[in-house]
Amino acid sequence: MIKKYRFGNPIPTDSVVIDIAPETAPITIFEADETAKRLRYNLDKKDVVYGLGETIRGINKRGWIYDSWNSDDPNHSEDKHSLYASQNFLIIASCNEGATNKKPIGIYVDDPGRVTFDIGYTDIDVFDIIFEDFDADVYVIEGESVLDIVKQFRHIIGKSYIPPKWAFGFGQCRWSYMTADEIREVVREYKKAGIPLDSVYLDIDYMYRYKDFTIDEAAFPDFENFVKEMKDEGIHLVPIIDAGVKVEDGYDIYEEGMEKDYFCKKENGEVLTAAVWPGRSHFPDFLNDDARKWFGDKYKILLDMGIEGFWNDMNEPAIFYTTDHLAEVFDKIDSYKGKNLDIQSFFEFKGTVASIDNNIEDYKRFYHDYKGQKIRHDKVHNIFGYNMTRAAGEAFERICPDKRILMFSRSSYIGAHRYGGVWCGDNLSWWSHILLNLQQMPGLNMSGFVFSGADVGGFGADATEDLVMRWTQLAIFLPLFRNHSAMGTRRQEYYRFKDIQGFKNLVDLRYALIPYIYDTFMNAVENDAMYAMPLSFIYENDERAWNVYDQLFIGDSIMIAPVYTQNAEGRYVYLPEDMKMIRFRSTEDYDEEVLEKGDHYIQTGLNEVAIFIRKGHKLPLAQPAMRIADIDEKTIKEISYLA
Amino acid sequence: MIKKYRFGNPIPTDSVVIDIAPETAPITIFEADETAKRLRYNLDKKDVVYGLGETIRGINKRGWIYDSWNSDDPNHSEDKHSLYASQNFLIIASCNEGATNKKPIGIYVDDPGRVTFDIGYTDIDVFDIIFEDFDADVYVIEGESVLDIVKQFRHIIGKSYIPPKWAFGFGQCRWSYMTADEIREVVREYKKAGIPLDSVYLDIDYMYRYKDFTIDEAAFPDFENFVKEMKDEGIHLVPIIDAGVKVEDGYDIYEEGMEKDYFCKKENGEVLTAAVWPGRSHFPDFLNDDARKWFGDKYKILLDMGIEGFWNDMNEPAIFYTTDHLAEVFDKIDSYKGKNLDIQSFFEFKGTVASIDNNIEDYKRFYHDYKGQKIRHDKVHNIFGYNMTRAAGEAFERICPDKRILMFSRSSYIGAHRYGGVWCGDNLSWWSHILLNLQQMPGLNMSGFVFSGADVGGFGADATEDLVMRWTQLAIFLPLFRNHSAMGTRRQEYYRFKDIQGFKNLVDLRYALIPYIYDTFMNAVENDAMYAMPLSFIYENDERAWNVYDQLFIGDSIMIAPVYTQNAEGRYVYLPEDMKMIRFRSTEDYDEEVLEKGDHYIQTGLNEVAIFIRKGHKLPLAQPAMRIADIDEKTIKEISYLA
Repeated sequence: MIKKYRFGNPIPTDSVVIDIAPETAPITIFEADETAKRLRYNLDKKDVVYGLGETIRGINKRGWIYDSWNSDDPNHSEDKHSLYASQNFLIIASCNEGATNKKPIGIYVDDPGRVTFDIGYTDIDVFDIIFEDFDADVYVIEGESVLDIVKQFRHIIGKSYIPPKWAFGFGQCRWSYMTADEIREVVREYKKAGIPLDSVYLDIDYMYRYKDFTIDEAAFPDFENFVKEMKDEGIHLVPIIDAGVKVEDGYDIYEEGMEKDYFCKKENGEVLTAAVWPGRSHFPDFLNDDARKWFGDKYKILLDMGIEGFWNDMNEPAIFYTTDHLAEVFDKIDSYKGKNLDIQSFFEFKGTVASIDNNIEDYKRFYHDYKGQKIRHDKVHNIFGYNMTRAAGEAFERICPDKRILMFSRSSYIGAHRYGGVWCGDNLSWWSHILLNLQQMPGLNMSGFVFSGADVGGFGADATEDLVMRWTQLAIFLPLFRNHSAMGTRRQEYYRFKDIQGFKNLVDLRYALIPYIYDTFMNAVENDAMYAMPLSFIYENDERAWNVYDQLFIGDSIMIAPVYTQNAEGRYVYLPEDMKMIRFRSTEDYDEEVLEKGDHYIQTGLNEVAIFIRKGHKLPLAQPAMRIADIDEKTIKEISYLA
Repeated sequence: MIKKYRFGNPIPTDSVVIDIAPETAPITIFEADETAKRLRYNLDKKDVVYGLGETIRGINKRGWIYDSWNSDDPNHSEDKHSLYASQNFLIIASCNEGATNKKPIGIYVDDPGRVTFDIGYTDIDVFDIIFEDFDADVYVIEGESVLDIVKQFRHIIGKSYIPPKWAFGFGQCRWSYMTADEIREVVREYKKAGIPLDSVYLDIDYMYRYKDFTIDEAAFPDFENFVKEMKDEGIHLVPIIDAGVKVEDGYDIYEEGMEKDYFCKKENGEVLTAAVWPGRSHFPDFLNDDARKWFGDKYKILLDMGIEGFWNDMNEPAIFYTTDHLAEVFDKIDSYKGKNLDIQSFFEFKGTVASIDNNIEDYKRFYHDYKGQKIRHDKVHNIFGYNMTRAAGEAFERICPDKRILMFSRSSYIGAHRYGGVWCGDNLSWWSHILLNLQQMPGLNMSGFVFSGADVGGFGADATEDLVMRWTQLAIFLPLFRNHSAMGTRRQEYYRFKDIQGFKNLVDLRYALIPYIYDTFMNAVENDAMYAMPLSFIYENDERAWNVYDQLFIGDSIMIAPVYTQNAEGRYVYLPEDMKMIRFRSTEDYDEEVLEKGDHYIQTGLNEVAIFIRKGHKLPLAQPAMRIADIDEKTIKEISYLA
């Protein structure tokens, strides 16, 4: 049962697609305090709080404070409050075993501005939702189970995006492959290694001077033919699209946007000049229907060249600086010259420069023309990236309605899940980020983002072979499976390491698993179900299962428990029932063992990946192929654990 | 058996106190490559590498690359290469079970400059030691066991520092308690809560304008009487001492240092002006015998006021900026004005400012007068902090030879362990830093730093009650037990949380454990043994034990396995033999259970701390007291697990 409570005058977000009349009675379950602009829920000792999308920390969000404020922050440490997305859906639940038959509660806070979720941070027993402006639609969902609440919620937000099937293949990325030849080399090396590959991603340097919808012709001569050459090899090129449009006379998109008045403006009516990769840029007003349509139509430039997939980036939006703020910074810096900079003034000076980018004040400097109203950006900040993804999604629907186009975004808000997937942004080559990747998946699925994953091996910082190996052992089970790393970091294409055969075995296993992965994915989309979920979603009465935060069920049949610590030769796994373990070294070389319900230490060497099949379930395994399209369903064999 | 190999012309460090003649034959076991300035060891699949002191990542250092380069970096993330100390002692070992009876190997690299330890980072099977200058004494130690090698090594570096007994009590710190009244309040609140406390730390604001050996008389009027007042309460005040001396006419220490020519100078003979807390400062040349003695004697100013303990900080040394470099930075900033700052130039601009502090070039701008030679700082960088601690230790020996004075330092090098302990610097309120704290202890003990610990609850970032509780459950077993947090972060004195009784129970348990802790500590010092060690140091033939990196033995009798993840209701523990578990809720309320050798999931609620006693061993527990001095040995009872 879903009830909608309206507070103040909410700005519509189009995240919910089913019309629900607001309640006339005051909110129950949560206690509203209009003065404090707050909703409060008193947590029981055993309450677990799920959700909040791709945020940091654990599957259980209890014990931290989160800000819904889409942020370009590449340092995903556990003390952060915001990442790239705002997915304000949560479920409060607890194990039913021996309990008062307490039912779970879902809550969706539909507010495009800043919202703070203090989930037992200030007081370990209190869950507060604090609004910057108390203008929001709040949906409270009661249900029989966590999965029931997920289903109800997903029903009202509309069906999740489905990518083309090749997008479930392995993709290789780097910031950046600088030339067509570099990409040819990547494809050649993967082929030589016998490692399946379906896509290579183009990061910002394929563009000419970072201008959206342009190609650097010197580095990528005759791009259209190059796209075709790759497609003939079975490789899809997936270019990045950024939110900022370079200010440059003669650049058609800039000139058109100016002419049609589609860029975001300051209060005085001047177009805002903010800098991103190309330096000075303007932001298309994705919230404006006409501007959104205009920008969306630009994807056709690349579609016409044979491109079939894109990733949208920098759409929080990231702002290196605004020209207005930068001028203020330079003035401020001048004032420090010649002084004895001590603890206060030195760190103030450093802070002035360190806080130039993504500065909160800059988000108050510009406006949107949204549904007929002029709205200051910070009030709708969290739906900016969503509307960029929507620009693309709506355009694809217009341009090629019968074709699935790959689309995923860095920034998002619920609603965007109908137009694309997400990746978890600029993570790091940290062991703890393998676990973070695992822990982000349930929250994403709950809020409709089923096609999702994180950069395998970590984007920033230097990877090690064993880290990439262990991370891959998780990622082969997730919908979006992409290896990506940043400029200046150690190269981490699989063929660059020593144990190439070990990596091949893992990617082969991914391709063998495709029938299961694709079915599970399609089921999750079509039935508003979970793709990846914690044990407690299934074993509602098992107290031990509720305390397991580093294992996942992928669909209903198999459980994974990846190793995420360095130098480990195995890990502990909790089995919520008797299960059959399959310990793969490759699709051909594995051992099977039925293990009893309970706790186990499972030996898994660096080359081994263990999965667990439920009783009465089976795992189909296809013969691996070098491309998704070449997987032959007729080769499927089944590993089953008969009841 | 210890062999010393001399490469080039090493700069002496005084870290080894026993004279060992250099081998005349070339080095064996390690392969030396003079051209590459490198020592190489080929690792077996099962080899574990222990040591490297307080460095980041796990107990097993394999799989990462470390730079010995003492660094003031408060962000102890897993991708860092250096922290505050250089403790270049390592042991390569593997489990003997069914093996070729391979013996462990110890290596100590005595080089005060930068040394890189690539321990299976570049190649998972290769351990390389790379020298900036191949001028080093390298000690290779063969022994029957890891503990045997530790004992041999500790023997040649001399006995570890022993603090006064009260220093094993609980200490509360904050950057900063700004006034005497604030400290009185802390003491009063702890008393009210019934939580034992032996010391309160004075961070930088007790000084007058951050000038070493001064008191801010407005904030701390009649300091000497205040020290006495606190001592009458059984509380020791422990002030911080910084490495930099403020440049200020009329400040006697500055003027004396100038007059006697005791400050570090640039190549041209001018005194180096570097900034720390007070802004422009000079560094005493701790490497110079006379300057070191001069600075050491200054501690008498505070000793005479009744102070009995100090902590030395900023002695890597931290450098906010040098005046020379800052001028260059301002010029560089001017060159960016008016330009279209794009991806390259914007991040270059930001980087110019972000890299002002602790800039490598600044460490090449000044010189030491060391053992009769003028040596550029970077060549002896890693022994600077060591010699500041030595300044204090040697002074205490002169001034009050019969009294133990508390001394611990942020920066260190082997040798400093004879003069003081260390704390692990500016960690963060991260759950992963509880585990880091645990994992740093064996490396520290191996290299002689027995009196050590990390800031409980985390220094930077905001703590939560459960994090502080879980961290305390580790810290009550470590020699240095101090709660410390940074300006601007959430307050974390125990009495500020909800479950004050829970914290009292834990600190009471600490005081009840003091007989065991003190005996274990004194044994570790006197017998060159380990205070805290991984299971593999004891159970050499147990393969499973070698793969446990999140449990420690504290001495020979008890094993700890603290919980270090949020929202956990317990954790897995491996028992290398049958052990008796004591699950404490308080010193009076606990359950005992004998558990079989093997893997267990141990329920430990937020208020519970489990320890494990070996067969044939016993744990003495005293009646807790509010001060260490008040613990009555006659109240000791024993919990034993009879063989």
